[in-house]
Amino acid sequence: MPLHFTSERHLDDGVVEREFTLGEIPGILWTPASMSTSAPVPLILLGHPTLGLHKMYPRLVARARHAAADGFASATIELPGCGDRPRIPALEQARADLRLVLEAGEPVTDEIIDALTLPLVDKAVPEWREALDAFLELPEIGGPVGYSGGVISIGVRLAATDPRIVAAGLFAGSFVPRATYEEARRVTIPLHVLLQWDDERNDRQAALNLFDAFASKEKCLNANMGGHTGVPPHAGDAASNFFTRHLK
Amino acid sequence: MPLHFTSERHLDDGVVEREFTLGEIPGILWTPASMSTSAPVPLILLGHPTLGLHKMYPRLVARARHAAADGFASATIELPGCGDRPRIPALEQARADLRLVLEAGEPVTDEIIDALTLPLVDKAVPEWREALDAFLELPEIGGPVGYSGGVISIGVRLAATDPRIVAAGLFAGSFVPRATYEEARRVTIPLHVLLQWDDERNDRQAALNLFDAFASKEKCLNANMGGHTGVPPHAGDAASNFFTRHLK
Repeated sequence: MPLHFTSERHLDDGVVEREFTLGEIPGILWTPASMSTSAPVPLILLGHPTLGLHKMYPRLVARARHAAADGFASATIELPGCGDRPRIPALEQARADLRLVLEAGEPVTDEIIDALTLPLVDKAVPEWREALDAFLELPEIGGPVGYSGGVISIGVRLAATDPRIVAAGLFAGSFVPRATYEEARRVTIPLHVLLQWDDERNDRQAALNLFDAFASKEKCLNANMGGHTGVPPHAGDAASNFFTRHLK
Repeated sequence: MPLHFTSERHLDDGVVEREFTLGEIPGILWTPASMSTSAPVPLILLGHPTLGLHKMYPRLVARARHAAADGFASATIELPGCGDRPRIPALEQARADLRLVLEAGEPVTDEIIDALTLPLVDKAVPEWREALDAFLELPEIGGPVGYSGGVISIGVRLAATDPRIVAAGLFAGSFVPRATYEEARRVTIPLHVLLQWDDERNDRQAALNLFDAFASKEKCLNANMGGHTGVPPHAGDAASNFFTRHLK
């Protein structure tokens, strides 16, 4: 299925931002300035949490500008059941269950984590792969391809199963379902894993165990102080250096 | 006590390497090219393990060249009881005890770790401070000052007690005596901590606990795959970016 572009604008740094739909799925593609005169560029898939593209836009465009400055195109799509997409009843139920458990101060069980994440991963990963098919049809996009960001279970499955993705920068800031540890053992591409040491939404030991599980010969854990949204700017620079090493 | 320079040579990248003695202690000072025309530069103290300066020279000069390329002077001194310096009987005994325990496959106890490290730290830290007095007397050295490298207990005590040191890059690759965790709670300067995930000479959980203990608001753990001597080149670049952020 090809991309259908619905808007195009030029940001002040020359980056071209185009909104598109891929069937029912909205998304955004960013390409560096002066693409028309240059060779096809590598691509970074920008993963993000389930807050919806509108809410995530400021952080996504900042990452896209950073990628463009390094010579990379970047792209994102809306996750299933998020933003303006139709709600998924099972996921809504799982989120309601999570809220009840958190309000009651009870532990978040593996069953709740599975219900929150596995249906999302099962739907999102084929959509990302279909979107990647479409991105790679564009003359301005070459390769190689990297994946960057959360939801970590989505990034892990993409890294484990799509050979077009040659490097991944993962954010260990989501719940980790048990199945993801097993999938992590099949990941062999270079990884850069970001961890917020005092992430209030994240179990630090679970993140360290996940990092340990990856089979990649090159994996780097970059842990910084602060909570979920407190990632320091230099961590972005470190991730950028990682992609420059592996996508160029 | 002033430095007594005993040799001077110019490396191919213009870096000036001067050997010196500070009383009985030999050391090396590296300054960037074309220092004579420029303002005093920041200084990085290059920590190193107990193998002696001769053995460590290739790695030290590589770090010194990297520092000089970033605009920093760097300097190191021989550790007590190491290299050509007189042996310290208590440390020799502790090393012999460690070898026996390792050969017998027995656990390395806290008592052995204390005996191996604490006398060394007690002697080395005042020497580093005295050397720093002398470095800062030189017209070509300004500040601020960073400490980089092992032995981690030496770096921790210097970071906790010498206010002239404003940032430290520590290598979590040595035994950690119990006292060092307590001292770590008094460290508040920015830290960049390097950990080799599969370091055969290092207890990973001990290193993670030490990282957790530091009181610094800015601390970054950079963990990479491989054994004690397998630190990847990009980890050096990350440390270099850290010092550039904090010493410039």
